[in-house]
Amino acid sequence: MGDIVKKVLVIGAGRSATSLIKYLLKNAERFEWEITVCDQDFELAQNKINGHPRAKALQFDINDEHARRSQIKSASIVISMLPAHMHIDVAKECIENKIPMVTASYVSPEMKALDGLAKESGIILMNEVGVDPGIDHMSAMKLIDTARSQGAELKIFESFTGGLLARESEKDNPWKYKFTWNPRNVVLAGAGGAVKFKQEGKYKYIPYHQLFRRTEVIEINGNGRFEGYANRDSLKYRSAYGLEEIPTIYRGTLRRPGFCRAWDVFVKLGMTDDSYRLENSEQMTYREFTNTFLAFNPTDSVELKLMHYLGIPQDSDIMDKIVWSGLFSDKKVGVPNATPAMILEKILKDVWTLNEDERDMIVMYHKLGYIVDGHKKMIESSMIVEGDNNEDTAMAKTVGLPVGIATKQILTGEIKLKGVQIPIKKEIYDSMLSELSDYGIRFVEKEIPYQGY
Amino acid sequence: MGDIVKKVLVIGAGRSATSLIKYLLKNAERFEWEITVCDQDFELAQNKINGHPRAKALQFDINDEHARRSQIKSASIVISMLPAHMHIDVAKECIENKIPMVTASYVSPEMKALDGLAKESGIILMNEVGVDPGIDHMSAMKLIDTARSQGAELKIFESFTGGLLARESEKDNPWKYKFTWNPRNVVLAGAGGAVKFKQEGKYKYIPYHQLFRRTEVIEINGNGRFEGYANRDSLKYRSAYGLEEIPTIYRGTLRRPGFCRAWDVFVKLGMTDDSYRLENSEQMTYREFTNTFLAFNPTDSVELKLMHYLGIPQDSDIMDKIVWSGLFSDKKVGVPNATPAMILEKILKDVWTLNEDERDMIVMYHKLGYIVDGHKKMIESSMIVEGDNNEDTAMAKTVGLPVGIATKQILTGEIKLKGVQIPIKKEIYDSMLSELSDYGIRFVEKEIPYQGY
Repeated sequence: MGDIVKKVLVIGAGRSATSLIKYLLKNAERFEWEITVCDQDFELAQNKINGHPRAKALQFDINDEHARRSQIKSASIVISMLPAHMHIDVAKECIENKIPMVTASYVSPEMKALDGLAKESGIILMNEVGVDPGIDHMSAMKLIDTARSQGAELKIFESFTGGLLARESEKDNPWKYKFTWNPRNVVLAGAGGAVKFKQEGKYKYIPYHQLFRRTEVIEINGNGRFEGYANRDSLKYRSAYGLEEIPTIYRGTLRRPGFCRAWDVFVKLGMTDDSYRLENSEQMTYREFTNTFLAFNPTDSVELKLMHYLGIPQDSDIMDKIVWSGLFSDKKVGVPNATPAMILEKILKDVWTLNEDERDMIVMYHKLGYIVDGHKKMIESSMIVEGDNNEDTAMAKTVGLPVGIATKQILTGEIKLKGVQIPIKKEIYDSMLSELSDYGIRFVEKEIPYQGY
Repeated sequence: MGDIVKKVLVIGAGRSATSLIKYLLKNAERFEWEITVCDQDFELAQNKINGHPRAKALQFDINDEHARRSQIKSASIVISMLPAHMHIDVAKECIENKIPMVTASYVSPEMKALDGLAKESGIILMNEVGVDPGIDHMSAMKLIDTARSQGAELKIFESFTGGLLARESEKDNPWKYKFTWNPRNVVLAGAGGAVKFKQEGKYKYIPYHQLFRRTEVIEINGNGRFEGYANRDSLKYRSAYGLEEIPTIYRGTLRRPGFCRAWDVFVKLGMTDDSYRLENSEQMTYREFTNTFLAFNPTDSVELKLMHYLGIPQDSDIMDKIVWSGLFSDKKVGVPNATPAMILEKILKDVWTLNEDERDMIVMYHKLGYIVDGHKKMIESSMIVEGDNNEDTAMAKTVGLPVGIATKQILTGEIKLKGVQIPIKKEIYDSMLSELSDYGIRFVEKEIPYQGY
């Protein structure tokens, strides 16, 4: 490892690494980086580096311990774009070899446990530096720190993010939605425990099966109306954000209005359950899958039974969405030994996969209410990023660019923090947000009338 | 271990062991049994044996391996009335010492795994020989075997059990229900996975949050109307009962009509969730607990918010039940670090604990539909057992007597089966059901008009 040439190792060259790798290549000459992109799929890695003179592609199976170790050992910094559960082996080898590491994933308990060792080793394990988590932390902390620097007493913090469709790609789609994040995570969103938040000093809990009926509508800065449903645990960022005493804290996910009432049909039927396998799932049709959740009746149609069971009018937008999704079609599921959630994901992928000419959009919205000098104030801050095309999606940009910028900040010594970190410190977010705005990822802040509860 | 005097070791002298121990004492002289009743609580054990010359009480901590081993070693048969998860250590020591064992609990996977060793050792591990499981298996198998012996093709099998209140103890109680089984199991009934059954050849799944809205009403033999909701997995007894090919199989739990619609309020609010702990649960009032599941509103009452949220009319029987339960009272929860389910159990224990003068009732109902000689036939079989008093409850009798009778059948050599068994064989159930009827535990069978789906 030379003192001047820095070796950047990127593990994983999938969709979300596109903008990251472009950013690294673009800055490679200036910062004297040598970039190695590894993936199980050699061609994918090679396509991503696109013949750049300072980059090489490598075929690499993350489970091949020998290859993994030897690559990590010779790197100056490691970026793991692997699925979240695969970061830990990499992190341990980074600690062993005193090499900093960057990921866009949530800090898992296993990752958190490495904090002491990472500090001893003198390196940073920088996590949650994508979009959500990532840009949300940074933009929120900027709002919060600014209000605090004025001596504000913080009252309300609400924060929403959504991966959606650019306006013109919403047309002819009653859900105004397609998968732009991991489809499995979308299907299982909110499942597996009660949702927790705090309103006016009171703890509030919503069971999963009511989550999609307790939404709020938000108009965002000329981009129309959205609806938000609560994320699993809004309470866990209180200490990281220094909001232990705030009476209202709520984090949520954005969709276009009407999405949640229709999604609630899947939840109420039991189609998002991932805890058991259906007998004979492979041979089932979508229609038979739907019928599995409805009582037997020798004469009524599956459509009628569903509408009657859940009290949905035939001419409602809910029923439009359900029919459009293909729930009543005679298509074969074709997945053996599948859970309901796996089958629902399969059905929705048929209609919710982006076409070549469609573009995604990421929306983020924060609202901060506080009292300063005896006056109630409320600031909202919003960000809209659209994908350029099928490859340079809003998702790839908003995940990849912060990862790339954090990598640069660590290599240049701008970030001096050690141990397991997330981007909530001013020394990180100030220059990060400023550089992101050069790429069109920018927040519009404005004061609005204070709305309490 | 002598050849003539048989030593019966009863581990656990709690409520459900009352009738069992009485049965053993009553038959001790005739069969030359010596009975040892062990419990952590010496006085409890001593009270139960009531100075009987052929019985002794022993203080015994099940975790004291030495004491446990030495008691088991010198027994001719061991009856474990411990909580289900504590049977395994006892079972292993029974195998080691070639001593048969009896329990009223479900066969756990760990118990099932001991089948081979028990057979090698030449002993029986007899399980599920209480009421549900127990009497349900025996009475169902009698119906099924009888129909089969006539060459019947089985079409429909439905089976329901409920632990309820004797008629006169239902008065002034809008739920017509109190805890007579383990309260925690009642609160968590149906939770933790989808309910599975089969109707007319189609697999059916009900998610937990809809379970209490998909009930059926059953009139039982002059005892009025009941409602049944589905048990977790109706499919798992198909192979034990030899019903692999039956098109309709459904097992359920009985309540008085109206119970389930009101219970559904607890489910919909999220109060039966056992997966997370509430902050500050100890200091909370019942009313604050309820409010935790409702949106914040500065003016509306908790009552109004609940009614509006779930669409419950103020003058409905549902609201009567909820108010009567104390959900809006200012009483303190007083349980630290509690889950919602633990708090709900606490609230319901206040109103659902049997008074001295109240008696319980166990109801069981089977329905078997089949075709014989080209004719459709349907048989129903029902059992109603009332408790004699606060101690000789219907629960204690219907759990304890079959355990006692099975113990006798094993000791006399009437039961010759080895390995892990449940009481589904004619050689067991015929004489068992006959002896149970001497104690007033008897089934009324009658033919009814065939009802398909």
